[in-house]
Amino acid sequence: MKLGKVIGRVVSTVKVPAFDGLKLLLVQPVDEQLKAYGDPIVTVDTIRSNIGQIIYYEVSKEASMVLENIMNPCDAAIVGIVDEINTENKL
Amino acid sequence: MKLGKVIGRVVSTVKVPAFDGLKLLLVQPVDEQLKAYGDPIVTVDTIRSNIGQIIYYEVSKEASMVLENIMNPCDAAIVGIVDEINTENKL
Amino acid sequence: MKLGKVIGRVVSTVKVPAFDGLKLLLVQPVDEQLKAYGDPIVTVDTIRSNIGQIIYYEVSKEASMVLENIMNPCDAAIVGIVDEINTENKL
Amino acid sequence: MKLGKVIGRVVSTVKVPAFDGLKLLLVQPVDEQLKAYGDPIVTVDTIRSNIGQIIYYEVSKEASMVLENIMNPCDAAIVGIVDEINTENKL
Amino acid sequence: MKLGKVIGRVVSTVKVPAFDGLKLLLVQPVDEQLKAYGDPIVTVDTIRSNIGQIIYYEVSKEASMVLENIMNPCDAAIVGIVDEINTENKL
Repeated sequence: MKLGKVIGRVVSTVKVPAFDGLKLLLVQPVDEQLKAYGDPIVTVDTIRSNIGQIIYYEVSKEASMVLENIMNPCDAAIVGIVDEINTENKL
Repeated sequence: MKLGKVIGRVVSTVKVPAFDGLKLLLVQPVDEQLKAYGDPIVTVDTIRSNIGQIIYYEVSKEASMVLENIMNPCDAAIVGIVDEINTENKL
Repeated sequence: MKLGKVIGRVVSTVKVPAFDGLKLLLVQPVDEQLKAYGDPIVTVDTIRSNIGQIIYYEVSKEASMVLENIMNPCDAAIVGIVDEINTENKL
Repeated sequence: MKLGKVIGRVVSTVKVPAFDGLKLLLVQPVDEQLKAYGDPIVTVDTIRSNIGQIIYYEVSKEASMVLENIMNPCDAAIVGIVDEINTENKL
Repeated sequence: MKLGKVIGRVVSTVKVPAFDGLKLLLVQPVDEQLKAYGDPIVTVDTIRSNIGQIIYYEVSKEASMVLENIMNPCDAAIVGIVDEINTENKL
């Protein structure tokens, strides 16, 4: 999974049938300092993420697994919202 | 999924049998400012996209899922046309 | 799928059994201007492509689908030969 | 698989149900000199890795295979801890 | 598949059970001139490759297919050893 920041919502009327009703958020990848890198991706969100939040998302086939219908052709989905990144060595 | 702009159509006579009848569009990846980045990819289009439109597409195995025959060896497909990208925080 | 130019043939005697008899071509990725970018990849060819031709190829699991035995561990295959890239807006 | 160094733990309360109970570590990719490159990723750890250790991890669907429930939507997981990289030619 | 040069062996004691007994080689990606590019990856080797040899390897799910147990969570494997790259047009 990768860290990202939600920066927008994608509105789309014409789309493949499998995407009806899915909420699409634009996510900017960020590093552990929350500094942006690379280019934004369009993700499916099922956990009510908001613009501005730091989340982690996944790509490739696994992204479909977070949807109710795992046959949906989704290649990027938000998995969770980040509360904190702990870098002290007491796992 | 990623944002892209349709920039051309790929014409191809000799191809693997599974691709007979598929419409192939050349898509230039763009960021949230619609600025081009990276290199264009060849996508399958099933939603009547046109040259010049901003779309989102997906890659990897999921791309086949938008086709009627999901066994088709397709690794990039257009999912929807973008109406608008909303960056205000009122999800 | 991505655009590429066939630049060589890879000769290999010692290999995993599943690759016996497969024709391997070295492909240089190119953009819509046919300008090279990135690094060459080794693809399986089933459509009699020749050195110098512009083709489109696919990667990841889908590449195996163009082979007779889809269980073959192939992650890159040529899909078709490009006749023309049409950038006028009359789709 | 790729080499990486564990640099942090990701704490996350709101997440998709499949991720309940999974331990998430932030990993910085490193090369064979253990020099950092690229951007950190969020991985699932099942082998009790610690911050500071050099590990190898994998991405894409295969990452789910290291979990008890292989249907989990995980696209990055730690596979093993590196003891040594041997570059002498006596395999 | 991609071209690479075997540059080392990865020794690892603590690992996920599925990796017991697998031989792990560190591979540096190279282009058609055998010039290094990008960062090394950890691959599974089943064809007795040696340090210094030019090989081609594959990534993603297909890599598991070269193993006896295709459920192994392997995302990179050596497929064959390169004898020669032929760039003359007489396929």
